[in-house]
Amino acid sequence: MNQPPVNPVGRAQFHANQRSYRVPLQPTVVVCVDGCEPDYLAQAVAAGQMPWMQKTLQHGLALRALSALPSFTNPNNLSIITGASVRVHGICGNFFLDSASGQQVLMNDPQWLRAPSLLAEASRAGLSVAIVTAKDKLRALLGNGVQGICFSAEVADQAQLASHGVENVIDLVGLPVPPVYSAALSEFVMAAGVRLVQTRRPDLIYLSTTDYVQHKHAPGTPAANDFYAMLDRYLAQLEGLGCVVAITADHGMHAKTRMDGAPNVIYLLDWLQQQLQRDDVKVILPITDPYVVHHGALGAFACIYLPDALTQTDVDVAGDVAANLALELAKVPGIEQVLTRAEAARTLELPPDRIGDLVVLADRFTALGTTPSAHDLSQLDAPLRSHGGRGEQGVPLIVNRPVPGLDPLRVWRNYDVFDLALNYAQ
Amino acid sequence: MNQPPVNPVGRAQFHANQRSYRVPLQPTVVVCVDGCEPDYLAQAVAAGQMPWMQKTLQHGLALRALSALPSFTNPNNLSIITGASVRVHGICGNFFLDSASGQQVLMNDPQWLRAPSLLAEASRAGLSVAIVTAKDKLRALLGNGVQGICFSAEVADQAQLASHGVENVIDLVGLPVPPVYSAALSEFVMAAGVRLVQTRRPDLIYLSTTDYVQHKHAPGTPAANDFYAMLDRYLAQLEGLGCVVAITADHGMHAKTRMDGAPNVIYLLDWLQQQLQRDDVKVILPITDPYVVHHGALGAFACIYLPDALTQTDVDVAGDVAANLALELAKVPGIEQVLTRAEAARTLELPPDRIGDLVVLADRFTALGTTPSAHDLSQLDAPLRSHGGRGEQGVPLIVNRPVPGLDPLRVWRNYDVFDLALNYAQ
Repeated sequence: MNQPPVNPVGRAQFHANQRSYRVPLQPTVVVCVDGCEPDYLAQAVAAGQMPWMQKTLQHGLALRALSALPSFTNPNNLSIITGASVRVHGICGNFFLDSASGQQVLMNDPQWLRAPSLLAEASRAGLSVAIVTAKDKLRALLGNGVQGICFSAEVADQAQLASHGVENVIDLVGLPVPPVYSAALSEFVMAAGVRLVQTRRPDLIYLSTTDYVQHKHAPGTPAANDFYAMLDRYLAQLEGLGCVVAITADHGMHAKTRMDGAPNVIYLLDWLQQQLQRDDVKVILPITDPYVVHHGALGAFACIYLPDALTQTDVDVAGDVAANLALELAKVPGIEQVLTRAEAARTLELPPDRIGDLVVLADRFTALGTTPSAHDLSQLDAPLRSHGGRGEQGVPLIVNRPVPGLDPLRVWRNYDVFDLALNYAQ
Repeated sequence: MNQPPVNPVGRAQFHANQRSYRVPLQPTVVVCVDGCEPDYLAQAVAAGQMPWMQKTLQHGLALRALSALPSFTNPNNLSIITGASVRVHGICGNFFLDSASGQQVLMNDPQWLRAPSLLAEASRAGLSVAIVTAKDKLRALLGNGVQGICFSAEVADQAQLASHGVENVIDLVGLPVPPVYSAALSEFVMAAGVRLVQTRRPDLIYLSTTDYVQHKHAPGTPAANDFYAMLDRYLAQLEGLGCVVAITADHGMHAKTRMDGAPNVIYLLDWLQQQLQRDDVKVILPITDPYVVHHGALGAFACIYLPDALTQTDVDVAGDVAANLALELAKVPGIEQVLTRAEAARTLELPPDRIGDLVVLADRFTALGTTPSAHDLSQLDAPLRSHGGRGEQGVPLIVNRPVPGLDPLRVWRNYDVFDLALNYAQ
């Protein structure tokens, strides 16, 4: 087992993706609260439901940060644990279109990862690492390369020592395996984090919840405040155990409804087929995943793949087609921005080979679909709330320790959270 | 009394500010629902609290429109009743700085109006007009030049035939004079509208509510849904009386809180005094008015007046000072845009002589103040919700009649509401 190198001021360090991290002095817990629009905290604190958070915001570090784009779960969880942009780690959504096969490819498998996580590098440097995620879809990506504990609440009863670094999780946590669509799935993650600290005191703990509550309930509503009150109790326990505790989110969350309460959707495939008068154009919605009950695969970010006949002709002509289409689409009310592949790769820090010929961002009131029949909205039992665009980029970045002297004008990212927790807060 | 001129297709017309309006075939009611962020409708409709609205959104005209900037009450009420931009009517807020006297001047008086309202022109053309506003502060501006009825709910018991065009309002409406900070103030406006149609059947009715509820309660909360259920009952009554009913808003509304629930404020005067190292810079917050309990004079729009010593020296130097200050201020997190006087006048359609050397827009999470001691937040009993910037520009624009064939790409404004109700919907 390697020893971490020693930094100039004497604390051991480990390295990942051209950033250095000091070895923690206390167990350091980073919680990614899925879909945590900052207003959830504001309303719950104002309602007296988060006494620990109220104190922490006063005495610790409390920043608003920007998530990576697309403001989806997988890209941002990976950015947080790599400390790097989506361009670096490559996971730009749940799906991308493989240009070789022309097929949509699910990116839950680590083969698509282009960068090691700082958790993997930490474990390689000899630190003990534990990861608990709500849904199993993230487990393989989060745990890739990690010598340590990594399991999901969703199938916590299936954790094996050889494959997950831990077993008998249900006994450890003392809670039953929760339903996948529930607030209890997140509570299991938090309870597991507390029990792991109590029983094993890992050096680094990463906890990633699910946004089931946030997709259904607006900030300040009773169900949202209940969720955050639950979170607060576990965060207080982690601090009570001596942990450095840092909180951020993968993305925010907004109502995306028409005034009649129905989802406010621009159906891009229909629009494109009408504009181009051909049906070989493709639209990828990277929010699409096997768990679509609470958002119907409707997010605020989409990739458009133009027909080969248009893109593989004369380069200038193809450029003109894409640029003109971008101009027309940008005029549609609800569209915030349409970028060509090169523009999107540069300005949104995305991997150019895994995005479309055009990248589309909807505004905060609007979601993007393909065609109505492709979206099963029958299970949406509340007005649509979703994410994916710039409107949902604002997230909390909180550490339970003061960090004086930070540049007030710097734009912090959610994927600076380990940097702040390890290099600034201890 | 003049007869309105006849338009080419035979309907009589009247004119105001270079727009023509057809004489209504039925009593036509325009309701400005103060602070009606579109999500209030979406959540209330989804919760089954607005059956009339639900039906109307399906069968009538349902657009999202943009309010005028600043997204404050007076500028937008005046834009709605003049059918014109703030640049045309001149009422750019509650206060402006009179450059002659150096004093803040309250603009509630019609002497500051630079354009006749379409309601005044309609009454001049022989139509019967009735106006009911929640707060008395708007009455003089709304009723200027109107031969007809104009009174406020706030002092409804003081309405006199000679001055208000109606008397015995309390008997007419059958409700007591409501408290100025209440949902009942808006209910009185709506009830008065219904009673006026029942008893006098005016040609044009303008009803303007107050945003007391919206400043305190987020969309979908019980208090908000109760308010919109109340509104829905009166709108249904107006339709039942045969009216063309149109609904828009003066501005939207957003939580402007820090994560600890406290108001998220940039104190501009403090910032400017520190940057310039002088105390003769002035900040005007045009939201400031005699009714500040529910927002503490904290909105998302401010005007900065630089010291004469800086602006009255060499023109190029003054321009440089303003431009450099704008660049620095634009870097402050929470500031959305800083415009010079000329830029603001041109791009925001504002009267250049009534705005500052710089115009500042805060983002949707942020409010602008002068210095902490100038803002009494002691009476804020809920997390701050406010308005004034681009974030609160999105408003409903609804008519209870179908209007087929509208250009889907046109950006509609709330001050197109009379045009739609009179020229398109009947």
